Amino acid sequence: MIPQETIVALASPSGAGAIAVIRLSGNEALTIAEKVFQSVSGKSISKQKTHTIHLGHIVDEGKVFDQVLLSIFKNPHSYTGEDVVEISCHGSTYIQQQIIQLLLRKGCRMAKAGEFTLRAFLNGKLDLSQAEAVADLISSDNEASHQIAMQQMRGGFSNEIAKLREELLNFASLIELELDFAEEDVEFADRTQFNDLLNRIEFVLKRLIDSFAVGNVIKNGIPVAIVGEPNVGKSTLLNALLNEERAIVSEIAGTTRDTIEDELTIGGIGFRFIDTAGIRETKDVVESIGIKKTFEKIEQAQVIIYLLDSLEFQLSSSKFQIELEKIKNLFPLKPLIIIGNKVDQLSEEQTVNLKEQIANILLLSAKEKQGIDELKNQLLSFVNTGALRNNETIVTNTRHYDSLLKALEEIQKVKFGLQSGLSSDLMAIDIKQALYYFGEITGEVTNDELLGNIFANFCIGK
Amino acid sequence: MIPQETIVALASPSGAGAIAVIRLSGNEALTIAEKVFQSVSGKSISKQKTHTIHLGHIVDEGKVFDQVLLSIFKNPHSYTGEDVVEISCHGSTYIQQQIIQLLLRKGCRMAKAGEFTLRAFLNGKLDLSQAEAVADLISSDNEASHQIAMQQMRGGFSNEIAKLREELLNFASLIELELDFAEEDVEFADRTQFNDLLNRIEFVLKRLIDSFAVGNVIKNGIPVAIVGEPNVGKSTLLNALLNEERAIVSEIAGTTRDTIEDELTIGGIGFRFIDTAGIRETKDVVESIGIKKTFEKIEQAQVIIYLLDSLEFQLSSSKFQIELEKIKNLFPLKPLIIIGNKVDQLSEEQTVNLKEQIANILLLSAKEKQGIDELKNQLLSFVNTGALRNNETIVTNTRHYDSLLKALEEIQKVKFGLQSGLSSDLMAIDIKQALYYFGEITGEVTNDELLGNIFANFCIGK
Repeated sequence: MIPQETIVALASPSGAGAIAVIRLSGNEALTIAEKVFQSVSGKSISKQKTHTIHLGHIVDEGKVFDQVLLSIFKNPHSYTGEDVVEISCHGSTYIQQQIIQLLLRKGCRMAKAGEFTLRAFLNGKLDLSQAEAVADLISSDNEASHQIAMQQMRGGFSNEIAKLREELLNFASLIELELDFAEEDVEFADRTQFNDLLNRIEFVLKRLIDSFAVGNVIKNGIPVAIVGEPNVGKSTLLNALLNEERAIVSEIAGTTRDTIEDELTIGGIGFRFIDTAGIRETKDVVESIGIKKTFEKIEQAQVIIYLLDSLEFQLSSSKFQIELEKIKNLFPLKPLIIIGNKVDQLSEEQTVNLKEQIANILLLSAKEKQGIDELKNQLLSFVNTGALRNNETIVTNTRHYDSLLKALEEIQKVKFGLQSGLSSDLMAIDIKQALYYFGEITGEVTNDELLGNIFANFCIGK
Repeated sequence: MIPQETIVALASPSGAGAIAVIRLSGNEALTIAEKVFQSVSGKSISKQKTHTIHLGHIVDEGKVFDQVLLSIFKNPHSYTGEDVVEISCHGSTYIQQQIIQLLLRKGCRMAKAGEFTLRAFLNGKLDLSQAEAVADLISSDNEASHQIAMQQMRGGFSNEIAKLREELLNFASLIELELDFAEEDVEFADRTQFNDLLNRIEFVLKRLIDSFAVGNVIKNGIPVAIVGEPNVGKSTLLNALLNEERAIVSEIAGTTRDTIEDELTIGGIGFRFIDTAGIRETKDVVESIGIKKTFEKIEQAQVIIYLLDSLEFQLSSSKFQIELEKIKNLFPLKPLIIIGNKVDQLSEEQTVNLKEQIANILLLSAKEKQGIDELKNQLLSFVNTGALRNNETIVTNTRHYDSLLKALEEIQKVKFGLQSGLSSDLMAIDIKQALYYFGEITGEVTNDELLGNIFANFCIGK
């Protein structure tokens, strides 16, 4: 462990509550805590065992600040791997500030964002991808993103990478050994085994890279654009999905101009719904800007809900077929859910007829909130939740995705080199490069700038 | 200890942070925690010592919710006096909710506001006034209110009451004993000593009752009204005191219509400044409503700052004397600070002249922030901080104040009875009544309604 300044920060959320937790970490954590803490038992805390809790008072110059519980974690058995002290004080913001200020006066320094976790990484308590998962875990707000972050924090992802890296490293050493005996033309590395390993690595990398598409939408929510002609009920549908009056609805075509976005969790997966301006020819300048934006939003969406007015199509199913072709041509590459809205205004007979005439249309009434659950189920079916259910490793982090892509490229170079009988010295360079990208993910390879970028996104106190 | 349901609540402030603390208390706290916690060490937590911390995972049906630290407090060595378990989890609101919901499914019930502290009271860990101090401590936002709450929580106040109550109780028993031997006409209770005790009690009660005036303003902040004619710079002074652009200022007389209030802590004491509409004859309806409100605010204020325009009075000190009399007549009972503003527009000579001519005026420039510190010192001098400095007990709670007043009344009755030779049986009734009011403060005498009222003001989780 490298000797470090002792840092302090509020670890619990800011604001008032029953209790607040202030965390110290560093060589002097126990010494500094000792200066301000009077144990009820009268015992010195530096002589106490790790993972014990002590009742006492925070006192300075005879003034009692608070009655607190003090928890001791001795290095290396702590989150950071350093000596750590946690003070559970009463949760007024005034007390929190006073105690932190007192600790600063006694020799602590204010922790920077993510500095506790950075120290945990530097002291080998976590690898880099696990450290990154800590921040993801804290910001996760639905089951899917929580589960992925949890899995990553427990090392699922980096264990897999680390194992492959080690095997590759073995071969790299053997090949480098061959270079030392270059004139004797020996092969220490079994080329068949090596090829097998490369195939395995390629397979794993490709699977991880593919998982990013799922991982990314799970982390950020799946964007779903709600589109259609003016006044078919797009805003009403958004409100029905969210179960609140989010968007202004009126009888007047063209009410929505700004695109409105809001999130909803369905079956543990976050969806981001985007209500758009109705698509039509218009002379209204503001409305036409809105329509231009609609097309931009459709580009970003992963799923499109196209809304039609059932009243129009129950009259003519051929008209619907024409419209349907038009829609599919408009959005050739996007998964599409086509909805016939306003079904509440049809008679039962009309509804049955419409269903018979037209397949692949979901009939619902946004206004009466009929058929909303069916729509939710259809949305969920677009998500490949199989991977989640099967507890497969999913990549959610763009940085990891980039490193995986680069590693794959290098592995494919090595494989090609092996097949085309490339000399060991040239192959060794590609292997080293692949190892480098593996190391970037888990943090064996790192630099201050990279660490700075990663930990700046953490909250202070973590 | 009465067997109780196991309750659970978030103890740390709501919202996201590095960590959050979830607290369980009750007979089943350890059993329920055991159901969802898998220790890394593999050991059963129910066999662990009190005041120890354990690393592990919250797991249910094979699903890992979070990696957590679990703290164990075994009865009676806990806040509530029951078995208590605290779970330090990652601070996402999603995780907090998930873990609490899991614990509810496993047999906990959601804690009501203040229920942890209520149990602490019922189990004799705190008396009632100490329990009330916990809520005060959490809501305290300046040094003075924090210090008073801290003192009360540590028992300063109730210890004093409890001691007197005990002495009084001794005499009460002796006097009741006399009743048993009524026919023999004996005196077990030494009347001189008893009179001494009553005098001591009376003295303490009066001091505590007097302290309420100070305690109340310290708890709620001292209201200070800033008044004066239009355009003398009242809003500018408020902004200068707060050091921010709180109130809109303009050259136009009558800019301020609504009264504006804001708080500032000076020397650890909270002051609540009230900027008011300028007092003048006006035909503007809104402004005249503002002026009416000004007079209401002056009624509520404990200190009045009366602002004058120095430019007017450097011309004529006699005019100032007349104005001064007018002001003192307007607010005969309130402490008054008279300020000559806009001193930056006077020459140095004019300033010296003005000071010589007029005593008891504070010259300053709100615009240039000159003399603001002097004003703050004057404000502070109005507060009887002597009691605070001398660590005297101060009553801040209206409920305690009421009980003290009633106890004093009964004690004075007893004293009068003693002096006028009242029979022991009648005197015993008054003593009992006094003891009752003492007990109300510390909680020896209580009922469900009273407890309900007190603990409903607590936050959930405390």
